[in-house]
Amino acid sequence: MEQKQMLMIPGPTPVPEAALLALAKHPIGHRTSEFSNMMAEMTENLKWLHQTQSDVLMLTTSGTGAVEAGMINFLSPGDRIIVGCNGKFGERWAEVGEAYQLNVETITAEWGQPLDPQLFAQKLEADTEKQIKAVIITHSETSTGVINDLETINRHVKNHGEALIIVDAVTSLGAVNVPMDDWGLDVVASGSQKGYMIPPGLGIVAVSPKAWEAYKTAKLPRYYLDLGKYRKSTAKNTTPFTPPVNLMVALHTTLRMMKEEGLEAIFARHHRLMKATRAGIKGLNMSLFAEDSFSSPAITAVAPQGIEADKIRSIVKKQFDIALAGGQDHLKNKIFRIGHLGFVSDRDILTCMASLEVALPELGYENFTPGAGVAATARVFAES
Amino acid sequence: MEQKQMLMIPGPTPVPEAALLALAKHPIGHRTSEFSNMMAEMTENLKWLHQTQSDVLMLTTSGTGAVEAGMINFLSPGDRIIVGCNGKFGERWAEVGEAYQLNVETITAEWGQPLDPQLFAQKLEADTEKQIKAVIITHSETSTGVINDLETINRHVKNHGEALIIVDAVTSLGAVNVPMDDWGLDVVASGSQKGYMIPPGLGIVAVSPKAWEAYKTAKLPRYYLDLGKYRKSTAKNTTPFTPPVNLMVALHTTLRMMKEEGLEAIFARHHRLMKATRAGIKGLNMSLFAEDSFSSPAITAVAPQGIEADKIRSIVKKQFDIALAGGQDHLKNKIFRIGHLGFVSDRDILTCMASLEVALPELGYENFTPGAGVAATARVFAES
Repeated sequence: MEQKQMLMIPGPTPVPEAALLALAKHPIGHRTSEFSNMMAEMTENLKWLHQTQSDVLMLTTSGTGAVEAGMINFLSPGDRIIVGCNGKFGERWAEVGEAYQLNVETITAEWGQPLDPQLFAQKLEADTEKQIKAVIITHSETSTGVINDLETINRHVKNHGEALIIVDAVTSLGAVNVPMDDWGLDVVASGSQKGYMIPPGLGIVAVSPKAWEAYKTAKLPRYYLDLGKYRKSTAKNTTPFTPPVNLMVALHTTLRMMKEEGLEAIFARHHRLMKATRAGIKGLNMSLFAEDSFSSPAITAVAPQGIEADKIRSIVKKQFDIALAGGQDHLKNKIFRIGHLGFVSDRDILTCMASLEVALPELGYENFTPGAGVAATARVFAES
Repeated sequence: MEQKQMLMIPGPTPVPEAALLALAKHPIGHRTSEFSNMMAEMTENLKWLHQTQSDVLMLTTSGTGAVEAGMINFLSPGDRIIVGCNGKFGERWAEVGEAYQLNVETITAEWGQPLDPQLFAQKLEADTEKQIKAVIITHSETSTGVINDLETINRHVKNHGEALIIVDAVTSLGAVNVPMDDWGLDVVASGSQKGYMIPPGLGIVAVSPKAWEAYKTAKLPRYYLDLGKYRKSTAKNTTPFTPPVNLMVALHTTLRMMKEEGLEAIFARHHRLMKATRAGIKGLNMSLFAEDSFSSPAITAVAPQGIEADKIRSIVKKQFDIALAGGQDHLKNKIFRIGHLGFVSDRDILTCMASLEVALPELGYENFTPGAGVAATARVFAES
């Protein structure tokens, strides 16, 4: 059926009607008081969402652009950095570091496993000369559905004292607690098409005072991604370059929605959606790619041993118009991923599970009691 | 009145209803055949608009990001470049060059005057050792309403043989002829909120084979702005990073509209709008900031000697809800600018002129026969 699509991928995530209608408004000039008033409120709300008093800046970029800006503004060529790599995005930040000729060391874990905080502790403790300038962590690894133990890793970074902690929070912010000031995170980067509930095109970077100190001496070249320019403009409720006006009007709308729902409620909802999804998959006797103890509240990866993952996606798409995400790189066709990030409700998880119950037998997979997936999902909702 | 605003600034420009409604559609996944089919058609239409067989790439950036990408992908630290500076944007590209530690030489003209092609010829001819790697030209200088003689300057670059010609076509593409292949332009950068008739948030960069040759040895660091990645993905009708899906759906719509109107008709319309605007301003006995022989078909700057420009803008805004642009930097309050770029019709110019006829006497300016502005504008329409 036309126009009946349901997005259950980790981005773009579903967009509420109010934000879609905001997108469709005639653009306004960005050098007007109308725009500045809107930006002032948005900046306040972004600080609320990041739980910070520091600067939160909006860029016209994807999430990748936001994380890259979060790295290159605070480092100089040859700087030693540690990048946690346990999925596609961790690997991407290592590539960014190499593109800028940083001295990149990776701490890796297998895709589907979390980063081991102890390995960070070892490297950071051994660095008595304080040469490590930054540690870059992907909080929620979108490619595998693993959430890394940012809080513990960050504690080791804090013990080091010198290194900045730079966080790819692209699929964690607005899904799980990321208390920037409380934990003392230095850079938190994210993208609009995730927990923010609007389409892609806006990158968001929050920057701590310690990171601004590093900015003063950081020598990597940048202009469009120069966060100092955004800081200066944001202080005047304006932007250094033409902003994506319509996306901002939409974000203005969804930030209000988020504030209305409340941080705790947002986190609780994502936690419940995660639990319900995982329970449903277990009810279908299928394997979860990431274990319960380090599963992301934004996305659940399923490893359907014995069935091609893309065949499941294809049926679910064709018959029910539900878009599930595939595996990336070597996980192509090995896993499929269910996004439950942003504008997602209990109903969506139930729907998804029910559709899987129809699709799987078509592929000859009958290793579950009909109804067991939906029932297990429903049980979580009843209990929480 | 609420929601009655009319944009006559050089960007964002007005957006047609079909594009607004396209923006409001639920986002689709960008790793789908639906998206790829759309992207394939868009890429073809962008090539048509650029009059090129070369690659035309879409980035999630503003126009500034697009021009910066168009510079840094083809140059190495210390490279000698020449930047034409006769307004805010020319100056910006010199700043970009300096941020990347290029050896920047500027060729300047006063704001409101065009660049002198002869000065480029001299520098290029004197460079017998072929050390000049690139010449960067702002085709239509948005800050002043001047169009630079790109065709002639480019001819001198071609005589040099080595240097790339990199063009900021942000407010010229889709308004005036920029025949990329015919002239042999190497990089043509633009932004969505201009002639493309959609809101800001998408940068477009076209790249010649000669520029791709330079890319192979260019050493400036980049990752998010690495055009090689976009080239590789575009060849497969996909994107290296999450694209601004909704903006692309809107651009898909407006590119079809542009194709329907036809290149010659688009250029003729902008030329007529420019002539009509200038005739109207002359009818009001006000000074045009740029002379007829080098006036931009995208924007007309007016220097209302004896009256504060911002007071005129303020009345027109308050009483008629028409947004005119102010002057930038030292031209603040000295000029105002009428945008006639993109989705603009004869009616808009007539309306703007009529509103000025009301506003000016309120500020004590009576140096015109009532009706003369509108009449002069109408005469151009009658004649063309």
